[in-house]
This record gives sequence, structure tokens and C-alpha cells, in this order.
Amino acid sequence: MSRVELVAPETAPIAPELAVTQWFNSNEDITLESLRGSVVALHAFQMLCPGCVSHGVPQAQKMQDTFGAEVKVIGIHTVFEHHAAMTPISLEAFLHEYHVRFPVGVDTPRKNSPIPQTMANFGMRGTPTLILIDAEGRVRFHAFGRPDDMQVGAAVATLVAEAQGAKVEVDDPTCDADGCRI
Amino acid sequence: MSRVELVAPETAPIAPELAVTQWFNSNEDITLESLRGSVVALHAFQMLCPGCVSHGVPQAQKMQDTFGAEVKVIGIHTVFEHHAAMTPISLEAFLHEYHVRFPVGVDTPRKNSPIPQTMANFGMRGTPTLILIDAEGRVRFHAFGRPDDMQVGAAVATLVAEAQGAKVEVDDPTCDADGCRI
Amino acid sequence: MSRVELVAPETAPIAPELAVTQWFNSNEDITLESLRGSVVALHAFQMLCPGCVSHGVPQAQKMQDTFGAEVKVIGIHTVFEHHAAMTPISLEAFLHEYHVRFPVGVDTPRKNSPIPQTMANFGMRGTPTLILIDAEGRVRFHAFGRPDDMQVGAAVATLVAEAQGAKVEVDDPTCDADGCRI
Amino acid sequence: MSRVELVAPETAPIAPELAVTQWFNSNEDITLESLRGSVVALHAFQMLCPGCVSHGVPQAQKMQDTFGAEVKVIGIHTVFEHHAAMTPISLEAFLHEYHVRFPVGVDTPRKNSPIPQTMANFGMRGTPTLILIDAEGRVRFHAFGRPDDMQVGAAVATLVAEAQGAKVEVDDPTCDADGCRI
Repeated sequence: MSRVELVAPETAPIAPELAVTQWFNSNEDITLESLRGSVVALHAFQMLCPGCVSHGVPQAQKMQDTFGAEVKVIGIHTVFEHHAAMTPISLEAFLHEYHVRFPVGVDTPRKNSPIPQTMANFGMRGTPTLILIDAEGRVRFHAFGRPDDMQVGAAVATLVAEAQGAKVEVDDPTCDADGCRI
Repeated sequence: MSRVELVAPETAPIAPELAVTQWFNSNEDITLESLRGSVVALHAFQMLCPGCVSHGVPQAQKMQDTFGAEVKVIGIHTVFEHHAAMTPISLEAFLHEYHVRFPVGVDTPRKNSPIPQTMANFGMRGTPTLILIDAEGRVRFHAFGRPDDMQVGAAVATLVAEAQGAKVEVDDPTCDADGCRI
Repeated sequence: MSRVELVAPETAPIAPELAVTQWFNSNEDITLESLRGSVVALHAFQMLCPGCVSHGVPQAQKMQDTFGAEVKVIGIHTVFEHHAAMTPISLEAFLHEYHVRFPVGVDTPRKNSPIPQTMANFGMRGTPTLILIDAEGRVRFHAFGRPDDMQVGAAVATLVAEAQGAKVEVDDPTCDADGCRI
Repeated sequence: MSRVELVAPETAPIAPELAVTQWFNSNEDITLESLRGSVVALHAFQMLCPGCVSHGVPQAQKMQDTFGAEVKVIGIHTVFEHHAAMTPISLEAFLHEYHVRFPVGVDTPRKNSPIPQTMANFGMRGTPTLILIDAEGRVRFHAFGRPDDMQVGAAVATLVAEAQGAKVEVDDPTCDADGCRI
């Protein structure tokens, strides 16, 4: 188990926008656009996926508890099988029973595929999937399965350190008579 | 953690019959009446109860794997909350995803109470609940929560040993011209 | 994982006597001879064997806590490697730090072999080893490695049930002018 | 569980030097002085401390495996009780059996105290203790007990990011005729 590699900023793709029909644990719609400037941890799961229930969802909750305001943890319920069994009504009860406190969006179903829209846009291979997006909106980490807590902690902290470095520059831009450069 | 006490045979109540609307993992209806002569482990759970998913259901599956034909492991889906979230359609997907191989019956809903019929008849306090029924149909053990594997193994084996002792007598009753004595 | 098979009483060998140089957690020497009439769980371990520390020793302690007076749990420190590192002085500190409360005997070293005497007499393959001895002194179960708690609970309870059945016969033997039959 | 706070660089004390009598897993003596420029994770443990064996030592090994050359993981065997039971001979067997691959130094015993020298110099409260030292040799984190893997991963990565930032400056110092400024 070596340290997970973050994708280099210059080659990392910009994250596509979320496509969500309904949010839980949030009074308003959430877009990645609106979270620009923050590190985002996107956790894709299905409520009847055993690896999500035992590993992914608790890890996402631990990320929120550990990093607090430094990271925006966002769950996406990416149902690609047993659609009738994992409706928003069932999801709501699941979130209640498992004490999930981070915002969770229902991924938008598609007509011609069992794979929902956000899952397709990000090219996810299954659930659980963890995607880390840097403060500039780039996908720097994308893992299917069960990354270790220590690796996840290190990856997130690295992006936070990067963002805080960048923030310093934003707070103190290089300005002159011609304007301001980042 | 001391050994779980089995209720003495002479004071143990006869188990009420199951009230089930639908079975999974069984081609035919199952009654406790038809299982008389076998030790029965009745495992009551809800698919969105975290303690059932992490502890109760795996323990019930381990009982089936460990004791094989010596014990009949029967699951009962006793939904008493979030009824719309835990329908038989959702349950079927849950059993598939969690590789549950023992028979599971859907407890019969009641009109005037959120508590379903079998759960009420047995006086269960919640989920998970484990009930052990001896070969004579008596409730010898009834526990809400998380009994330890070693305790469960000991309790089941004690009932199996009892049943095998009893079976010898059944196979070879003391009969004479006056009739047969147990 | 199917149920562990107990050796049939008629083919099970009588356990050889323990060869111990020193006891901890016991004020007097313990012999298997003196424990006849009780089910005995013999747990062989080394204090620097990782599988013993994480699995075997806690399981042996759980057996004592679960079965209480029904089973005599006896530890044997069977050092067959790193002899200078696992002296009785180190063992005593180990037992203190890990809160081991069952009696532990130091297996007798042999001059011509790294394998100590009791370990050799029982034909043990390594540590941890769990051996179950029935009330008649016969070796009914002998496992190297990590048997599951549910299996161990079942095996012990079966021997206890046997012993209690046997005890009835001992209390009320079939005797006549020719003598007494078991 | 919120994120562990690193001590601010400007208020963090410089780490005192190690006082070690003997090294395992290293052919040469190791000093903190010689590690300046690297992030150092100092893991203090005792081989018969249950929390060290189950949590601290595996976590330290995971740190080495996860961060590789980015962090120098150094173990210190800080024996403050049962001194006769935890000699270097016993420690060597422990390190072998538990597959510890990071360097481990034996803390120097003191005549007038059961607390060894390095442990006293750092003001450690017990074992396990994890101390993180930044590339400038400052103690930025000092925890007795069991910090979570995600928190540890985040703390280490933050110091690594800091060090890499500093390293850029070292590679490209501000030099002029008067000399070079950091």
C-alpha cells in the first residue's frame, strides 16, 4: 500500500457538473460550480451495496467529521441496478437509520441505460467510488473500491494545503496599474 | 459475559406459529409445525437496521453455515418502521446483494399497529432478535441485540445435543403390549 | 465453515499428562488427572506469536468468561523459538499486561529439541493450538490456528452436555452382583 | 473526531535529540540532526503494551508503507515498566515476529528513574505516543494514545506539503552578493 497518487493539476480534467433530481440533508441545490474554491469529496454509493454500507459511507462521514469546513463532502446515490428497490423513499430511510449527515443527491436516471447521468459523466466504474476535486474544480483523484483511511486523509490534506496556498495568492493578488494577475 | 441461560424445558412456552405473507429462498411455505423435531433459529431483522446488517444477518448466515442440517435457520423481516422504504421488492434486492441463503419470510402487516403479526405474537422488543426453538417447539432462548458468537454456538449446540438425546428415544421408544412410553 | 467435528469418544486418545515447570495464576500445580470429570480447554501459545496475541489468548479468556465453572481453561506457554526472548519473567509481564486470568503453565524445555515436552507429547504443530479434553480425559478436538468462536462455543457445549449426561450415569450406575457397567 | 491540530511552526519547540543505546533495522546510528530536511514520525512503544501491539505499531508500519521516502518513520522502545521482561533480546524477537521494518532504537535507561532518557526529554506521557517532527526539526504534533488513521494521514501530508514548499525555496534560494536568504 503506497501513497495514492494525485493527478497532476496540469493534466487533471475539469469535473463535469452534477445531475441530481433531489437532495437530502440540504435545503438547496448544490452544484460543483458553487463549490469552486473548496476541496470537494464526491462519494458515489448505492444503499444496498455492501461495500458502500460497511466502508464507503462511514469513510465519507469520517471525512466530514475530520475535515469540517475544509472539505465539502457530497454523496451521490448512483443507482445502476435494482432500481425499484432503491427509490428516494428507501434512500431517505437509509440516511436516517445510518445517521448520514452530509448532503446526498439522487443521481438522474437515464432512459436508455441503467447507468444514471452523473455516474456516466464521471466515467465511474461502480460503487463505492471516491472522487476528490480540487479548489479549481479539477478531478485529482478517482478511485473505485476501498481506499485506506490513511491514504484518503493524506490525499485530502494535500489538496487542502494546495488550496490554502492558492488562497493566499487570491487574498494577496499581484496587482499593478494594468490589473491583477493570479 | 457469562454463558447465556436457556429457559428450562418445563417452563418454556410453546412458540406461536409464524404469520408470513411471502417467502424468499424457499419454494414452499414454512411453518414451525412442519419443523418440529428440529432445532430452529429464528432471526428477526429489518433490512435498514444497521445492527442487523453488520451483526445479526451475518451471524444468522454463519449459524446456517456452521450447523448445516442440524439447525433450521429462518429469517423473518419484521418491519415496524419506515414501512414504505422496506417493501418486499427492496428486501429481495437486499437478500441478493448480501448473499443471504437461508429462507426469509415477510412478517404480516397489521392494520392497527406498526408492529407486524409474528413480531407481536412472539413479544419481540426490536431488531435484531434471535429466538431459539427446541425440537419440541418450545422457545428456549429469546434475545434482543447482539449475543456473542461463542454464546450462540454454545446455546445451539446444547439444544442439538438435547434433541439428539430425545431423538434416540423417539427412534427406539419403549413399547409393549400396553402401548409406548416416552 | 462447517461445524468442527469432535473425535468420536471410542476412537479418541487419552490426553498425555502436562509437563510444566512453573504455574502463573494458580497457587498449586495442575494436572489433567486432577481435572478428570471436567471438560478441559487447553490453549497452547507463545507470548510473541501474533496470532496468539490477537486471536488465541482472547478466545481462551472468552471461553473462561463464557463457560465459567463448566470448563477448565488452561494455558500452556509452549516456547519453540526465540527461547531467550520468552522467559518466564517476560511471560509474567505479558500475562499481567494482557489481563490473562486463567492458569498458565510453562512447558518443560527439552535438551535435544527446541520443542518443549508437553507440546511434543500432544503432537502439536505450532501455536496457537486449542485442544478440548472431555470429562473422561480423552482428546476430542485438536486444532492449530484460528477456529471460529461459534464453532468453539458449539464444540465446548457439546462436551459439556455429554459430561452432564455422563454424570447422570455415574451417579446412577448400572450395578448388579457381577459389578457395575457404564 | 475533528482534525488534529498541528502546532504552529512559530510556536513549536525544536525536538530534543534521541538518546539510543542500540538500533534494530538500521546499520548505523540515527540522529534527528541527520534527518533534518525530512518529515519524521517518531513512534514510541513498549513491546508488551497491548495498545501499541494492536494499534500503534501497525499504524507506524502503515505510515512507512504509505508515505515511503516522504517520511522517516522511527520507532523508539521506551521501556518504563517491567524492565526485565522487555530486554533488547526480547525486543529483537518481537520485531521479527511482527514484521516491523522501520528502524527501532532502544531508549537509554536512567539510573534514578524508571523513565528512559528520550521519553523524559520529549515529555511523553506513556505508550503508544506518536510525535511528528517537521523538516525544520520542530515538534508539530505529539499524541498519547490512538489517533485515527485518517487524522494521521492528514497531519503527515500537511507537513510533507509544507516541506515540499520549503524545498522549492531551498532549490531556488534568494541569493545575491551578500549571500542567500531562505
